[in-house]
Formats: sequence, structure tokens, C-alpha cells
Amino acid sequence: MYKGGYTSKILRVNLTNKTSKEEALPLQTAKDFIGGAGFGIKFLFDEVRGGVDPLGPDNKLIFASGPFSGTTIPCASRMAVTAKSPLTNAVGVALVGGYFPVELKYAGYDVLIIEGKAETPTYLWIKDGKVQFRSAKKVWGMKTTDCQQIIKNELNDQNVRIACIGPAGENLCKLACIINELRAAGRKGLGAVMGSKNLKAIAIRGSGEIAVADRDKYKTARDNFAKLMKESPVLYPQFSKIGTPMVVDHACAIGIFPTKNFSATGEYAPVDKIGVEAQLTRNVGSEHCYGCPVGCSQVKVAKTGVYEGIMAEGPEYETFFSFGGQTGVENIDAIIAADRLADELGLDTISAGVTIGFAMELYEKGILTDKETGGLKLNFGNDEAMLTLLRLMAYREGIGALLADGTKAAAKKIGKSSEKYAIHIKGLELPAYDVRGAKAHGLNFATAYTGADHNRGYAFQEIFGIPIPNEVDRFSAEGKGKLTKWNQDVRTATCDAPTMCAFLLDMAVAAQATQNTADLMQAVTGLNFSAEQVQTVGERINNLARGFNAREGFCRSDDTLPERLMMEPIKEGASKGQFISKDDLRKMLDEYYTERGWDLDTGTPKREKLTQLGLSYVADALKL
Amino acid sequence: MYKGGYTSKILRVNLTNKTSKEEALPLQTAKDFIGGAGFGIKFLFDEVRGGVDPLGPDNKLIFASGPFSGTTIPCASRMAVTAKSPLTNAVGVALVGGYFPVELKYAGYDVLIIEGKAETPTYLWIKDGKVQFRSAKKVWGMKTTDCQQIIKNELNDQNVRIACIGPAGENLCKLACIINELRAAGRKGLGAVMGSKNLKAIAIRGSGEIAVADRDKYKTARDNFAKLMKESPVLYPQFSKIGTPMVVDHACAIGIFPTKNFSATGEYAPVDKIGVEAQLTRNVGSEHCYGCPVGCSQVKVAKTGVYEGIMAEGPEYETFFSFGGQTGVENIDAIIAADRLADELGLDTISAGVTIGFAMELYEKGILTDKETGGLKLNFGNDEAMLTLLRLMAYREGIGALLADGTKAAAKKIGKSSEKYAIHIKGLELPAYDVRGAKAHGLNFATAYTGADHNRGYAFQEIFGIPIPNEVDRFSAEGKGKLTKWNQDVRTATCDAPTMCAFLLDMAVAAQATQNTADLMQAVTGLNFSAEQVQTVGERINNLARGFNAREGFCRSDDTLPERLMMEPIKEGASKGQFISKDDLRKMLDEYYTERGWDLDTGTPKREKLTQLGLSYVADALKL
Repeated sequence: MYKGGYTSKILRVNLTNKTSKEEALPLQTAKDFIGGAGFGIKFLFDEVRGGVDPLGPDNKLIFASGPFSGTTIPCASRMAVTAKSPLTNAVGVALVGGYFPVELKYAGYDVLIIEGKAETPTYLWIKDGKVQFRSAKKVWGMKTTDCQQIIKNELNDQNVRIACIGPAGENLCKLACIINELRAAGRKGLGAVMGSKNLKAIAIRGSGEIAVADRDKYKTARDNFAKLMKESPVLYPQFSKIGTPMVVDHACAIGIFPTKNFSATGEYAPVDKIGVEAQLTRNVGSEHCYGCPVGCSQVKVAKTGVYEGIMAEGPEYETFFSFGGQTGVENIDAIIAADRLADELGLDTISAGVTIGFAMELYEKGILTDKETGGLKLNFGNDEAMLTLLRLMAYREGIGALLADGTKAAAKKIGKSSEKYAIHIKGLELPAYDVRGAKAHGLNFATAYTGADHNRGYAFQEIFGIPIPNEVDRFSAEGKGKLTKWNQDVRTATCDAPTMCAFLLDMAVAAQATQNTADLMQAVTGLNFSAEQVQTVGERINNLARGFNAREGFCRSDDTLPERLMMEPIKEGASKGQFISKDDLRKMLDEYYTERGWDLDTGTPKREKLTQLGLSYVADALKL
Repeated sequence: MYKGGYTSKILRVNLTNKTSKEEALPLQTAKDFIGGAGFGIKFLFDEVRGGVDPLGPDNKLIFASGPFSGTTIPCASRMAVTAKSPLTNAVGVALVGGYFPVELKYAGYDVLIIEGKAETPTYLWIKDGKVQFRSAKKVWGMKTTDCQQIIKNELNDQNVRIACIGPAGENLCKLACIINELRAAGRKGLGAVMGSKNLKAIAIRGSGEIAVADRDKYKTARDNFAKLMKESPVLYPQFSKIGTPMVVDHACAIGIFPTKNFSATGEYAPVDKIGVEAQLTRNVGSEHCYGCPVGCSQVKVAKTGVYEGIMAEGPEYETFFSFGGQTGVENIDAIIAADRLADELGLDTISAGVTIGFAMELYEKGILTDKETGGLKLNFGNDEAMLTLLRLMAYREGIGALLADGTKAAAKKIGKSSEKYAIHIKGLELPAYDVRGAKAHGLNFATAYTGADHNRGYAFQEIFGIPIPNEVDRFSAEGKGKLTKWNQDVRTATCDAPTMCAFLLDMAVAAQATQNTADLMQAVTGLNFSAEQVQTVGERINNLARGFNAREGFCRSDDTLPERLMMEPIKEGASKGQFISKDDLRKMLDEYYTERGWDLDTGTPKREKLTQLGLSYVADALKL
């Protein structure tokens, strides 16, 4: 038993046998991995052997919150959802906020591990340690908002919090996400994993409390944290009013807002159509995750045409890219509508939008024709086609069946020269950064254990000049190996593991991130953490995840970038002429592997490094 | 203070001044009017003088529940919403169930009277006697489901219950309704009244309890009631599994399911497409109003095409008519989608569908052309056009602006011969009964104080042969005046006033209705009611409502039927050849007025009748 933060309990649910049991969370696991993505990857490595089918019953779906969730520390009601990704076959981790994560803690659990496969559509009802397996017949086929409401009604409790899949997850679309409220554990097809288990939803309600180990230290650490947040020139003054989409204008200004399937970055920057000024004409107010004083989620209501009256919580920056720049759609109301539709269908907005943009380029190039699209005019900028295609993808109908599993799978089926237009890494579609103009971010995309993932090691030094403007040259490949390691380890250790909102790292705590986390860990859990130890947790998690991927067969050659980003320079704008040459990538990788203590040829962690991190069992598993 | 049932308090809210006050509910009002529609009409008559603009600040919007709501008597969480109707200029009463009505009681009120007009979009937050006027900026423009969720989030209380309007109400569409959860206080444009007051929503939460006067009597009365319900051959065995849409097959079988704007009743009966067998392929389960053991609301999920995955609580029978038979749309999934869209836009499904069917007939007859419709192909059976038109009506865009206020207003604007295709009475569109084949029901439509309203005096004897099969000849005009008076008075007294679910009257209590209500009233309130006194309450309310309408200028000539129903016999089917001739109508009206003690020339209650009912003040107001 710990003194604070953790509930110290894991709930293990087996859908095949309809059994559940509680297990103690080992103290060493807490010390080594903190929580969240750390726990998820630890259990995934230990329990999901190499080579299992991600959509088979042997894959596991792991929900893990962090030690601060349920305390009064702000911005901590988050969780990591972890499984072997059907989209990448690598570690799949998606972080999400809202209210479900804290409810999991209040219900008594740090971690929920879902195993097996239910015989018929099922949802779980977890209330303060009691688990029920309930028929999901009533909500199967239902969109996510309705699903949540109907389950609340069925349980006669409006305070239940629910994570669920939409039709996309039911149909095993590899772009499917998991939705709680209108928030998405978005990427890597984790919704398909849930669907493959016949698990429509998890409903949860708890009345527990989360203790704090040292009240005095807690007050100090919490106050310091709040002070850092308050002192940020961006967090409250701008971010709380505009949210992530404020990045649209900035990314366009520095020439890294990707447009038209990364073919027109810098040439085409629809700031006047979907930038902050346009966004504010649609903002009606903000929504908050549990315990968050910032409230970055900007509720928008569409105002025109067939989209009039459609509300979205968002779209976030990424979605203004994926349903906007990437597809050439300039109609802000269509983007709002597509965002909401994707949430309702349970589709990841990034991967879905990138896949649609990919299909649009193929259509414009004549590689896909009306024959394949069933007459759908998939030209860039066709907003109605975009919304139609979203639906078709979720239901695997018509051309949607071809695209439902993302760009990599689609390119394989389409053949011809389509692969060179498939903008993905390890199967995961690129998010909203044309990393030709931000090279550490590019290296991060190439090396992140989840694939092209902005959330694994966001290079805020390059994108925003934080904490020191112009300290890092975003066009240079120099020193980016070391920077990327730092970004990945620190972000993992201070956001993904303790499940703290990543925006705080980027905008408020930055260089103090590890010390801040160490202070909070000491105060909340009573475990003795230094800033260095926190950072080591980040390194440990990244090495363990890399070990998982190595066991799946991933190696150095998978740490690459889409061909377009290495061959075609950005044509116009503030990043004009930039690209990441194969030579630059090679150099950055060499530096990165060296910094990481990984083998330069294979990109696999060396036994020595693993042992140093307490991961000799990984070395054993990999037969190093 | 009463011993039970009533909270004995009225909450009066003035939006102009942002003030609220509590008033005692007079004992005599309770005795004379029981509750619900009784209270609504009483306050409307007393407080809204003749001739006020229904969409002006002098109209009032009155929410009133009944004395059983909040007790354990089943099927009593209902309320009447009352105002002067902008659609008819007559009394506007709509009954609705769900959870809001009981929450109003728990918050401490039998009645909520809304006065004036807020300067800016506002919602009310009423919690256990405290009233807040809050900005509705965030939810203005929002559809009804999102609006309710966002308000719950803003109030940080998921147990709040909310009644709100959608875009249709905001845009003063006279077909707008008021929605709580997915239930509608549907007809007579009460949503426009709410919109005219700049009132987007009323959020309510209460923790009070409702006392019962005599526990022994209560147990007996409640058990008797439950027994009547249990003994019904229809209520649990069928109605709880199929709900109101089970009437589709029956209405087709007896030839009174109206189709294609009442032009093809009997000729065209799409039972195989939208009848019970087809419905069951879409049913996923049922929803319940608070405290209801029946759960008639059948949740449906659409399965095909662009409608796939859309859920509706319903559609009810009326909506299978209005978006199905009336428009010739046979696609059950389109009907499900239209039902949900109407709920989200806050449009009454009956009036909206009838208006669309009206426009379709005009289009097919060339009275409306592509010029007026903006190219929308308004042919019968065009489901996509139907859904498009719903949106246009809610936003008053294009052809929608012409149709947004219903058939009567549209016919006036269109001119030509359009009025003869406008199927309304007193401005209210006809519901799902072609009363050419059910003459008491037709007389009820002609005389109901709200216009063509199946809910004011449903002729279940004609439609279902309840309680005695074949006792009443539905094709005959004989004796229908007396029957209609009985139906109207009993339904008012046993359903609308005590706010009990009307389906119980039709299917379970029938002939015992007034005794059942008297027993429950005695037990719950301690007031001494006989069956006769209950029925007299119904008569009193109908006379008071008639008095209100007379003050507005309504007279005998308004008690009429659409020309088509009096001129064109039903062409095919089990009611072939039937129509209600002008002579039949005249005879039925004469009998009805005579039974009612109303003047045969004017159709106005005589002073003698009013005095006998304790309504001499109505006679005074009408200068009789």
C-alpha cells in the first residue's frame, strides 16, 4: 500500500470467461514507470507476446491513469490507452482527458486490463470495485454520444462516465478511436482493438478518494505548479480562449502547416478561412477536463449551409489540418461538421483526414477514378465528399472499404505509384506538422515508438521557440538526436506517465518539467523522486517500448519518413526549400541512437543500456 | 398547505426584469383544476388578456405538472406546457413526459410561469427554490441534445434536467417544439413562444420529496391502478415492446392511415415498409419516462445508406405517419433520421411532416415549382428532400421560410388553390388519423380547443373498439356529440390535468378512468373527489379553454374540418367511400354543443353552464 496517489489496484477483466479480478499494483512498477503510458507499456510488454494478432483475443487493451488523477492537481484527469496497434503492429498508446480517467481512479483502479473477446456485444459496468458484463445489444451500431446517453439511462445514473467505440470500431476500421464524452483516445486504431473484443463501452462510477502522502509538500508543489501555469504568457491569456487551433496561424506563418497531402505546404495556407480570426466567429465557449482551470477545448457551432447548427468540441489544431489543410477544404463549418461526425463514428480525425487527403491526391492524379470512388468526386476542397467518405470508411462501404485501414494498407491494395503519396510512418499517418521545416520534430516522428506521433516528443523548441526563442535552428539537422531524446524522455516522464496534460509542458513548465514532476511525485505518492529519476523513467519507458517493437520485428529501416518529405523540398513560404534528406536523416538517427545507447545498425537498445535501466528482461526477451 | 401531492407552490419568473417569486397555489385552483393542463389554462385565462401577440412579451409560458408526479404512482412524470399558440392563436397545450416534470416537483413547484422577454439569450437554472438567469450565449444556435449536455457540463451537474428549444424555436418557427431529453412538448409552436422570450432552456434540479396524504388509501389505489395496467391485454404484452407505432398496421387495416397529404388514404398503405415487422428490424430497446414500468418508447437505429447509425427514440406512430405515409417516404431509415433531426432542430414532427406533405402535393400539382423550391424536387417519396426541407424550415431558409409557420400560413402566402390542400384545423396540422373513417375522432379534431389534436379527446372506442369491440360505429355520425364530450372531458380530467400518461386511458383504465383518478386523488392529496367530480374537472377545463378561445374571437365556424375531408370520400381500403359531409358535421356539432350546454349559433358556452362549473368570471369576461 502506498501513502498517496495510487489506488494500488489493477482490475483485470477477461471478456472470454466473463471474469474479473483485482491485483495489487507492484511498488516497483510504480517506481519504475510512474503510471499512464508507463504502466500500459509495461503490462503490454510483459503480457502480450511477440507476433499476436492485434485484432485477436490475445491482444490486450489497457487503460491506465496516473498518480495525480483524482487529487486537486490541475490537468491530471487523463489516461493512457495501450494495446498492440492494428494500424502499426507496434506499441499503440493514446492519451485522453475528460472525466473518465478520474472516475477510474475513484472506482478504485490505477489500471484496467481488458483481455480476451466477448462472445456477443458487451459493455462493462464498473462501480466501486463491482464489475458487470452487460449486453450491448441496445447500443451496438450506435454513435458515440447516443451510446453514452443510452447507457447512462439504462444504468439509471447520469453520473456514470463512459468510454466507447462508434461504428468504426465495431467494423474494425483501423483508424477507429475510443471516445469518452467528446474526447478521443484517437490514434493507432485502439477503437478497432476494442471492437475486436466485442466491447462497445466501459461505464464507470466511483466514490473513492485519492489520498496525498505529504500535505505540506503537496501544498507547496501544487502552488509552484499553479504559479508556473499562471506565469505562462500563453496558457491563460491565449490558450484558454483559442485552444490548440491557435497554432494554425503560427504554423502557416513558419511554413510548416501541411496542405493537400503535404504537396502544397507553404504554397497554400488558408489562414483567412480557418485561422484564429475565422475560428473565433464560430467559438461559443470552452469545455474543461475534470479539474482543469484552463479549458482549452473550444466549443464551436457551424453557421452555414447544411452544416448549420452542428456543434463540435474542437476541432483541435490537428483537425483543422486533417479536415482542412490536408484536404484543401476551406469551409470552416464543414471542418466542424467533419470533426463531430468523426467523433460520432469513432474515427481518429488525424488519420481519417490524412487518408482522405491521400485519396484526393490519387483521384486528382487519376490513380483513383470515378470507378473506384463510385462517382464520388474526390477533388481537394470537396467538403461534401469528405464527409461522405468519413461515413463510408466507418462502415467499410464502397471506396470506404479501401480506405478504412489508413494510407499504408490502402496504398498496398491500390498499388501503382500510390505508396509515394501515403504520408505515414510505420503505418501511422502524419499529424499537422510538415517536418521538412522542423527537423527534430521530423526525427521524433521517425523514431517515436508509436509511429508518426506528435505526442511522443513534441519539439516545442523548434515549433514555438520555447523556452528560448531562436535557440534551436529548426532547419538544421545538427544536435537533433540529443534534443529528440530529451523531448521524448521528458514528455514521456512528465506527461504520458503521470498523465498530465501535455500542453502544460509545452506552454508552462518546459525546462522545469522534470523537477515539477519530481516535486509532485514526492508530495502525492511519498516516493522519493529527483528530477533525474523522473527523466530516467521517461528513458526507461522509451526503451521498453522500443523493446516491444523490436520483438515485433521493427528495426532501423522503419525509422524513416515518407518519401515526399525526403525528396521534395517545400516549394513556398517560410520553410521554402527545406526537406529532410536521406543523409540528414541518417546523421540524425546516428546521433539519436548513440545518445540512446542503441545499436547503430539495428536501432535496438543494447543490453548494457537496458540493464542500466533495470530492463535486463527486455534484453533477455530480445536474446541480445 | 396540502397534505400530499402538491408542492403548493408556483414559481413566477419574469425575464424582462430578471425577477422571480414564489406564490402559494390556491387550494380552490387545485380542487377545480387538479393540475397540468388544468392549471396551465386557468393561469393563461386569468393572466393573458385577449388579443395579445403570441410571440410578444405579454404571452406567458406555463409549465405545470400534476399531483401524482413525484410519488410512486407509475406513468405520472408528465407536464403540460401552456401558452397562447402562435400557430392557432388559441389555447396551446402540449403534454410531455420524461424526467423534467418530476424534477420540477422535486425542485419545489407545481407550476412555473414564465413572463416577459429576456434582453439577450438566457437560460434559467432552478435548483431547489433558487433561480439564476444565465447567459445562453454558449448554447444559442445549438441543437437540443448538445444544448442539454453543454448546460449540464456548465452547471457541473449531470443530474440536471433540461427543457430547451432548438434552432427552430430560436427562429420563431411556428412549428417549433420544446424538448427535454429526446421528448417533445410538440405541437402548437410552443417552442417559438419560448424563443420569442429569448429563453433557450430551463435547467432544473430538486431534492424535495412529495408527500402522500393517506398511506393506506394510497397503497390500495396504487395497487388497483397497477392491477388495471397488468390486466390490459395490450399494455405490457404489446405496447411495451412495440410502442405507439404498432398502430401503423391497425390504422392501415381499418383504412384510416392518412397518406400523401390525405389524398391517398386506403389506396396506399406502406405496411410492409414501415409497419410493425419492419419496425422491429430497427428496434434496439426501449426507454422509459421516470417511474414508468411500461417503457413504450422504442429506440431505433437506422441501418442503411446515409442514415446508417442514426438513432431515434421513436419515431412514434404519429411520426411514422407524418414523415412516412403523409410524405410517401417508405424508407424506414429516412423516417428514423427525420424524427431525430426534427428533435434536434426542435420541430414538431407532426406539423412539420404534414407541412412537407402539403408542399409535396403542391409541387406535384405544379402550384409550387422548382423556382419556389430552389430546385428541391419535392415529389412524394423523396426522403432526401424531406430531410433537407426540415433543416430549411428550422432556419427559415429558401423554401423553408415559406413553410416554417405551417400549412395555413403557407397557403395564405402561396394563394392560388393551395388552401384546399392545407390539412389543418384552426391552423394546427392534422395528426395521423384520417377521420373520414372515424367520425367522433373527426368531431373531436373539429372541436378540440387546441385545433386538430388527437390528444384532446381520443376516440379509442372508434379506433380500437375499446372497451367494447364494435359498440361504436365509426362510420356513423349518430351519438358522436355525446361521445366526444365524454372523451374530451374524461381525457382532460384523467390525463391532461393529473398529467397521467394518456396511453393508460386508452389501453388500461378506459371506463374506470374517472374512478381511478378519484381514488388516486383522495389518496395522494387528501382532497375529496368522486368519479363525477373528476369528470366535472374535465368539463370545467374544456369550458375554460373554450372561453379563452371565444375571447380570441373563435366561434362555431372555426369548428370545422379541412375541405378535403368533407368533399372527397376515401377512395380505397376498409374505409372506402367514407367522408364527413358538411351536413354530418353540422349534426354532430349541434349534438355536441347541446351536450355541452353551448350556444348552437356561436359555439360559445352559455352563462348558465359556466356558472354551474364555477366559471362565472368567464361569462363576465365574454360579456355573456
